[in-house]
Parts: sequence; C-alpha cells; structure tokens
Amino acid sequence: MKISARNVLKGKVVSVEKGATTAHVKIEVAPGQVVTAAITNDSVDALKLGVGSDAYAVVKASDVMVAVD
Amino acid sequence: MKISARNVLKGKVVSVEKGATTAHVKIEVAPGQVVTAAITNDSVDALKLGVGSDAYAVVKASDVMVAVD
Amino acid sequence: MKISARNVLKGKVVSVEKGATTAHVKIEVAPGQVVTAAITNDSVDALKLGVGSDAYAVVKASDVMVAVD
Amino acid sequence: MKISARNVLKGKVVSVEKGATTAHVKIEVAPGQVVTAAITNDSVDALKLGVGSDAYAVVKASDVMVAVD
Amino acid sequence: MKISARNVLKGKVVSVEKGATTAHVKIEVAPGQVVTAAITNDSVDALKLGVGSDAYAVVKASDVMVAVD
Amino acid sequence: MKISARNVLKGKVVSVEKGATTAHVKIEVAPGQVVTAAITNDSVDALKLGVGSDAYAVVKASDVMVAVD
Repeated sequence: MKISARNVLKGKVVSVEKGATTAHVKIEVAPGQVVTAAITNDSVDALKLGVGSDAYAVVKASDVMVAVD
Repeated sequence: MKISARNVLKGKVVSVEKGATTAHVKIEVAPGQVVTAAITNDSVDALKLGVGSDAYAVVKASDVMVAVD
Repeated sequence: MKISARNVLKGKVVSVEKGATTAHVKIEVAPGQVVTAAITNDSVDALKLGVGSDAYAVVKASDVMVAVD
Repeated sequence: MKISARNVLKGKVVSVEKGATTAHVKIEVAPGQVVTAAITNDSVDALKLGVGSDAYAVVKASDVMVAVD
Repeated sequence: MKISARNVLKGKVVSVEKGATTAHVKIEVAPGQVVTAAITNDSVDALKLGVGSDAYAVVKASDVMVAVD
Repeated sequence: MKISARNVLKGKVVSVEKGATTAHVKIEVAPGQVVTAAITNDSVDALKLGVGSDAYAVVKASDVMVAVD
C-alpha cells in the first residue's frame, strides 16, 4: 500500500507502552532522534509492534507545524 | 514557549512553496530525511521562513501513525 | 505497507480537484457515500490518482468524531 | 448545528469501549464497513452513546489520507 | 446535530479569505481573541459564511496542545 | 520558541485529569470559556501543569472546524 502522507520516516521501535485504550510507541528515526506516536492498543497488536521492530513513523503534511527559536 | 507536542525535530528549511492560502515548507531533520509541513502562508511570513532557516518540525503524538512493511 | 490507522475504506476516485498546493480528492466508499480528502498536489501525482482509480480513504481513529441528531 | 467537516457518515454504533480517559466507538456506516472513533469518555456520556445508537462518524477533509495498492 | 468535539466556541466571523481550494475563516470568540480555521472553500459556501455571521469554532480535544512560557 | 500554529489562546489551567497514558487538561481562555486538551501524561509532567498554572491552548488552523446553527 502506498499512502498520500508525505512524511514516512524509517526507524526502529525503542519502546511500547500500552494504556487502557491508547498506546505510546517510540520510534528512533535517526541517531538520537525519537518520534512518539499515540495509537490504539489494537494497532499495536495488529502490527505486532515490539521493541526492536522495524517501523515507519507516518505523518500527514497538514499535521506538521513549524517553529523557530 | 514550551509546548506539549512530543515531537520537535530540529533541522533546516530546504524549500518554501506558497500557494493561494496554504504553503508547503520542507525541513531536513537528518541527512537525507526531509519533513514536509503544510502551514498557512501567514505563518511563513510571521516566522520569516526561508531556505536555510533553522527551524523545528513539530508534531503532536496523536498525529503520528506507525507502519510496517 | 501496513498502517496503524484503524480506518481504511476501499472505494473509487470520483473527482480530483487540484488547487495551488492542496488538492481535494473524492472517493466513493459505498453506493452514494463519498469521502473527501484534502491532500497535497504532490500526493495526487505520486499516487497517480485520477477519476476511476481504485483507492482507499485512510483516517486515524483519533481524527474521527461522533455526532448524533 | 451544521458543521464544515465535509465527511458525515450515517450509521449505527456497534461497540463502545471506555478507557481511563479515551473511549473507542465503532460505527457501522455501510454493511460490513465499520469506522472507529477515539473520543473522550466525557463525549460518550454527553452524547449518550451505546450499542445500537444512531450516530454519524464525522471527519474533517484535511484528516483524510488516500492510499493505493 | 450534537458533536463529540469538546470545544465549541461561539463567536462572529470577522474575515473570510478563499484560496484555490482552502479558505481561512477568522472567528472572534471573545473580545480580542480570534480563532483561525482552515476549511474547504466548499464548506464556506455550504455554511454561507460571511463577515458578521454567527458561527462556532469547533476543535476536537485531541487536536489541542498546551504551551507554557 | 515561536510556532506556526495560528491559534494560541492564553488562559489558566482549571483541571488536570491523568488517564493511563492520555491526560485531559482544561484551560479557561476567557470568562466561562474553557478549552479541553487531550495530551500525553508525559507532557503534563514535562510542562509541570497543575490547577492554576498559566498556560496557552494551541491549535493548528487546519484542525479548526466551523459550525453554524
């Protein structure tokens, strides 16, 4: 499947924390650069995500903001 | 200002394309890893964004999805 | 690629309208039920979307609201 | 109330799962086509959502992505 | 229609700027406090929005971030 | 840090409710006008948010919808 989301960052899962319904998955996309995703517990199971899994962090361009110092 | 968004990736602006109301700003956050943001033209002006600007790509954790091959 | 987004609705593209930077793509996901996506013009090109294309409308669960009469 | 969100899909609630703060509500919007919404527990109560309720899944066009095989 | 979105701020439209596909609508929700919405041109027409219209700015709780100085 | 998000509403935190992974923070941005944010528990800690804290509710323009009666 090819998706319209412009941001697809390859990395490795470094932590998975399940909550009651919402899980937090951290993916290291570059040395020292970790992206946090809040997804459903169901998705963690469906994608069989665990520490060490190869995974992509995917973000729609309209969900990215820009900041400056 | 310190923000709750869990993902704040430091980089450099590599392109700015203004549309009628919506602009696309590309930020290189790691060598070869470019993030695209769709923001308002007004924000481009307010933040004085241009090619070469230091900038952060900011994403709320609930807007990050995870994918696997 | 398998994605964490819980909502992947199969359908057919019924219209594509490009703007200056943002395009509107309409996908019929059930008879008479059309979903509108606002994505980048770049994505329309990258996915080669046109009227009649098979396509999926993909939505993260945290972006779905519920309403009642 | 009439809303700007372009996607308002009519259906019936088929499951409600409350978490600690976030609930998952599944709405069948066409035979066999179920949409999952992650909303606050408060909203489930305010809208009195339960299995069998008539309800709409509402999505802003800018939150819809497109994918192809 | 009653919606799950937790944030429904009543106000008056103070400007409408249509782009090629995306419009910017500004709503004053309290004296001096203006909220900007980026919605489709189609929605502006469907809701007959113009300067002076009574309108609500509606935001899902999961789309609100918090910042501190 | 200066952010592209067009909506930055100043206020005071009136409640913080932590869940398993997701917290709900309510900010009064005008007399009687309260905005609810669903953010990670981690962010509540990182920003040291508590009742009475000065804080901003921050929303990207593309996440704001408009409604009329």
